[in-house]
Amino acid sequence: MKQITKYVIKNSLKRIFLYRACLARLKMMGVEKVFSYTLANETGVTSEQVRKDFSEFNIKGNKRGGYEIKELLVVMENIFHRNKDHNIVVIGMGNLGIALAKYGKFVQRSMNIVATFDIDPFKQKARAGITVYSMARLKEIIERFRVKVAILAVPEISAQEVTDELVRHGIKGIVNFAPVLLKVPADVIVNNVNLCDELESVIYYVHKQMKADGLKNLELLYKDIKY
Amino acid sequence: MKQITKYVIKNSLKRIFLYRACLARLKMMGVEKVFSYTLANETGVTSEQVRKDFSEFNIKGNKRGGYEIKELLVVMENIFHRNKDHNIVVIGMGNLGIALAKYGKFVQRSMNIVATFDIDPFKQKARAGITVYSMARLKEIIERFRVKVAILAVPEISAQEVTDELVRHGIKGIVNFAPVLLKVPADVIVNNVNLCDELESVIYYVHKQMKADGLKNLELLYKDIKY
Repeated sequence: MKQITKYVIKNSLKRIFLYRACLARLKMMGVEKVFSYTLANETGVTSEQVRKDFSEFNIKGNKRGGYEIKELLVVMENIFHRNKDHNIVVIGMGNLGIALAKYGKFVQRSMNIVATFDIDPFKQKARAGITVYSMARLKEIIERFRVKVAILAVPEISAQEVTDELVRHGIKGIVNFAPVLLKVPADVIVNNVNLCDELESVIYYVHKQMKADGLKNLELLYKDIKY
Repeated sequence: MKQITKYVIKNSLKRIFLYRACLARLKMMGVEKVFSYTLANETGVTSEQVRKDFSEFNIKGNKRGGYEIKELLVVMENIFHRNKDHNIVVIGMGNLGIALAKYGKFVQRSMNIVATFDIDPFKQKARAGITVYSMARLKEIIERFRVKVAILAVPEISAQEVTDELVRHGIKGIVNFAPVLLKVPADVIVNNVNLCDELESVIYYVHKQMKADGLKNLELLYKDIKY
């Protein structure tokens, strides 16, 4: 049965990413140890939440003298990189696909883009220094590199069709940049990254904030008026 | 006081985006009316949650005969586009910056990239058909186009410095693609889009699923064994 995948990424996992970013920052600043309340303070959650999240992901540490930042970071890396290298394919070589295929941070985190694909034969030559394969070779390359995860950067109109093909060839996880809800079998994970939504969220909050500030200014104005 | 911005994007807002995507899909399929339980079913939440979210964002509709999909979509658009056009700047013209500056969906949603910037003079000529300005003109252009929101696609090393400059010139919201936690004043909203985290999340869940499936297969195997 195919279904729309929902909130696959739990908030606790997102917080782990946040803690990790925060720890990396502290480490860069020369800090060696951290208490759960420091981490809580820096990331805007409660200490209890930090400890609860650590427990969920089985992150241990000596609480008395604080956590060793270096150790914590290693433990966190292990959560995500248990199987060392991860081979990824990118489908859709438009501007976004190219940017993702060339994104240097992926390699730093042992996520290797082993191949890129496009249905457009015009793009199927080495575009921007990347070899772009025809979709006909998808199966062969997925099998050869034991790829389980794909980045989808195709237009929304072909997103479902390409997804069906990826799933047929054994892909189990998709980071989907096409602004469309994909239907996949229950054992396939889809993480939607909708760029419009991300930008609109910010616009929404900026306007809300500006409106609130406007009202506050108005209140201050009235306060100053002497009746 | 500068601080790290945390979870600015509430889950209820994210669900509104999900409902909207789902409604757009249903509309495309020719469906005209929808009940909260249909929407709940399609998006994997409870009907109660749908109604609660609708109420939070002041979305009303005739519940007896179901919601008119067309009307719902208009109401949802109004949540995000009250002030019609939104002028946006993109800072950092690497591959990702170019992809974002050229992302066609933004314009369709009345979000206009009015200018792009880069510190690298080499990139400051029309790169890929876009005019790239020097950072020296940031203030002037932000003021001229009354820009409140910026997309940040600079390397992490310069992200904080550029952010400080943006804030100084009146930017109130940032979609941050640099993998670093930015410090901003309390009235500035930062939405972090960390591409590594998005990909790692999927890898994490795929491995978890594969491990679970492995155990299930093992259980099935043991079940078949006759002692």
